[in-house]
Amino acid sequence: MAQAKSGLPGLTIRNVRPLGGAASDVHVRDGRIAASADNAEIVDGGGALLLPGLIEGHTHLDKTTWGAPWHRNTIGPTRAERIAHERDWRVATNHDAEARSLALARAFLANGTTRMRAHADIDPSIGLRHVHATQRTRESLGGIMDIQIVAFPQSGIVCQKGVADMMDAALAGGADVVGGIDPCSIDRDPVRHLDVVFGLASKHGKPVDIHLHETGEMGAFSLDLILERTEALGLVGQVTISHGFCLGTLPVAECDALLARMARVDMRIATTAPAGIPVPTLAACRAAGVTIYGGNDGIRDSWTPYGEPDMLDRAMHIGLRNGLRRDDELEWALECVTSAAAVGCGFAGYGLAPGCRADLVLVDAETVAEAIVRRPARRLVVAGGRVVVRDGILVV
Amino acid sequence: MAQAKSGLPGLTIRNVRPLGGAASDVHVRDGRIAASADNAEIVDGGGALLLPGLIEGHTHLDKTTWGAPWHRNTIGPTRAERIAHERDWRVATNHDAEARSLALARAFLANGTTRMRAHADIDPSIGLRHVHATQRTRESLGGIMDIQIVAFPQSGIVCQKGVADMMDAALAGGADVVGGIDPCSIDRDPVRHLDVVFGLASKHGKPVDIHLHETGEMGAFSLDLILERTEALGLVGQVTISHGFCLGTLPVAECDALLARMARVDMRIATTAPAGIPVPTLAACRAAGVTIYGGNDGIRDSWTPYGEPDMLDRAMHIGLRNGLRRDDELEWALECVTSAAAVGCGFAGYGLAPGCRADLVLVDAETVAEAIVRRPARRLVVAGGRVVVRDGILVV
Repeated sequence: MAQAKSGLPGLTIRNVRPLGGAASDVHVRDGRIAASADNAEIVDGGGALLLPGLIEGHTHLDKTTWGAPWHRNTIGPTRAERIAHERDWRVATNHDAEARSLALARAFLANGTTRMRAHADIDPSIGLRHVHATQRTRESLGGIMDIQIVAFPQSGIVCQKGVADMMDAALAGGADVVGGIDPCSIDRDPVRHLDVVFGLASKHGKPVDIHLHETGEMGAFSLDLILERTEALGLVGQVTISHGFCLGTLPVAECDALLARMARVDMRIATTAPAGIPVPTLAACRAAGVTIYGGNDGIRDSWTPYGEPDMLDRAMHIGLRNGLRRDDELEWALECVTSAAAVGCGFAGYGLAPGCRADLVLVDAETVAEAIVRRPARRLVVAGGRVVVRDGILVV
Repeated sequence: MAQAKSGLPGLTIRNVRPLGGAASDVHVRDGRIAASADNAEIVDGGGALLLPGLIEGHTHLDKTTWGAPWHRNTIGPTRAERIAHERDWRVATNHDAEARSLALARAFLANGTTRMRAHADIDPSIGLRHVHATQRTRESLGGIMDIQIVAFPQSGIVCQKGVADMMDAALAGGADVVGGIDPCSIDRDPVRHLDVVFGLASKHGKPVDIHLHETGEMGAFSLDLILERTEALGLVGQVTISHGFCLGTLPVAECDALLARMARVDMRIATTAPAGIPVPTLAACRAAGVTIYGGNDGIRDSWTPYGEPDMLDRAMHIGLRNGLRRDDELEWALECVTSAAAVGCGFAGYGLAPGCRADLVLVDAETVAEAIVRRPARRLVVAGGRVVVRDGILVV
């Protein structure tokens, strides 16, 4: 087998159907998709559907209980209660963010997720411990999984002593994205909150991703403040609004006006498409030209018992939430966990074209819709040119 | 092994935790749960969670493509389009309602569903063909799965020639429940529609189950007409409203007033808890004393690509839709596919007490919530006293 520059052997996968299209072969050389591959390992694709590596656009590796015994959830209904409870729970259970985040990231990989944006908590009680844990998971999976880390002030910035400085240190030390959260309802001082967030973004030249759970007029006010700063600083394509529930509750005309402003600065939306909460719809975002992409948010943590580390599962929930039934409509849901997420998070070299990083997923399905609805075990996953899953089993 | 009256051997399952409680043994004699079982087969439960047989409260066995090649969904967005398209699709694909319904029912059984309410289409183009197909599936699974059949006028009664007479014949020939659908928006003549439905219920002495998708004031009007007839005829505990989306869209006071009237005549609600549609909530129904239970509606048919023949999966969707996060809250979701569904559909001899029909499900999970969230393969399923699933594999 020829050794390419990357040190990885070449690979040819015969008889696959890219996104459900006509059968063809795909070649991998030096970790990238290529027009041909000499002396390569040859794998029979068996006519399977070929997808680009799946992308998790919004999750919290550091919070999960994945791989640990079942966590009995007994918490109260408000977001503030859940944040406070989580801080206590971390101590009470001696939560090992490094072991858990690695276990969850590997489970994602087994289901074909090769890139991810992970929000890592920063607060006075843990400092940068969760950022460092997530960084170590990223190092463990180096060359295989591409993990962006968001310096995320879960408990607030203004109302929590020292968090702004900790975020500054995290961004200087390898975090990729400046996080933020509900400037009014959590941090209770929207202007100072956003001053810190956008100040850090300017200082470090890094993009912004703000959790905006606020609904109705309050959420619209926060979004207006975020847009104002994004416009003034010319941060085109540099800001993501995660959740953006207010865009599901405002009158249509107000929602459309905000979406139009977002489109002008290429502001993106990350959605988990929760069943019980009004959300920005794919239809409205597509009509406005706003990139919307998908994420699970937390998986089986102290906040929520739910979640699967499988972006086809998240695509299904996006489809259910948006009433997508036709096979062609369900391709929009796939975009949310593939190409739109690559744009939204800024992952370069993404896709199935020659030259792209060889992140490939094979599933036995007739159409994209079938892959999303049935979510079969992954027949083969290639990450950065390396075979990491065969017949549903992680082999790295 | 001793042979009991039923011809079935006795069974003892050691070391199981009923609904997550303390470990105990469960005995089966003559197809029923018993205080002891002599000379029985002994199965090691391994400390698994023991649930009563799961109940599917609202599905359409006759429509499914389960077990057939993937159906590419290309239909339009309105309910009327979907109904018309389905009539064409049945002919174009030479749909085999008997083979498909049996395949789907067996898949439900493999996941521990032992009782079910199945709506079978009746319209001028198929007559009673789907009713008979569902009846043959019921016969094939006799003694194992308890299937109620609803004579369901999918395309309407008043607006479709001969459907009232066909429903009459179906009910005389073994259908268990009188169906109905959107008296205003589909049948376009609410009073005559309900006259037929309640007339057939009186004539045959059988319960009623009406698909009410109508939202807002129109749905409230139809529900008011249904309540009026239920009250006048004294049909306490005899009427189910399936879906009842209007109860998710009305102002709280109007919704509560309707729920209070429903509670007085023990009218039930069957919910699929769809992600994208306002629905009656578990909280409102529980507060009003209205029994609410769960169903999948159609699974992978010409209407929808989605669905799993697994009531733990439906319980998860009910949990997601209702924002249930705590372990104790998720027990409400389980009730929707167990005890509340037994009450709602009128299945007798249900539960884990001695004397109940021995419908038992073992899953490897710590709590009910974990079973719902993880939905592991069923370790063991007993149906009517017979072991039908071992280690996730259907053995009948």
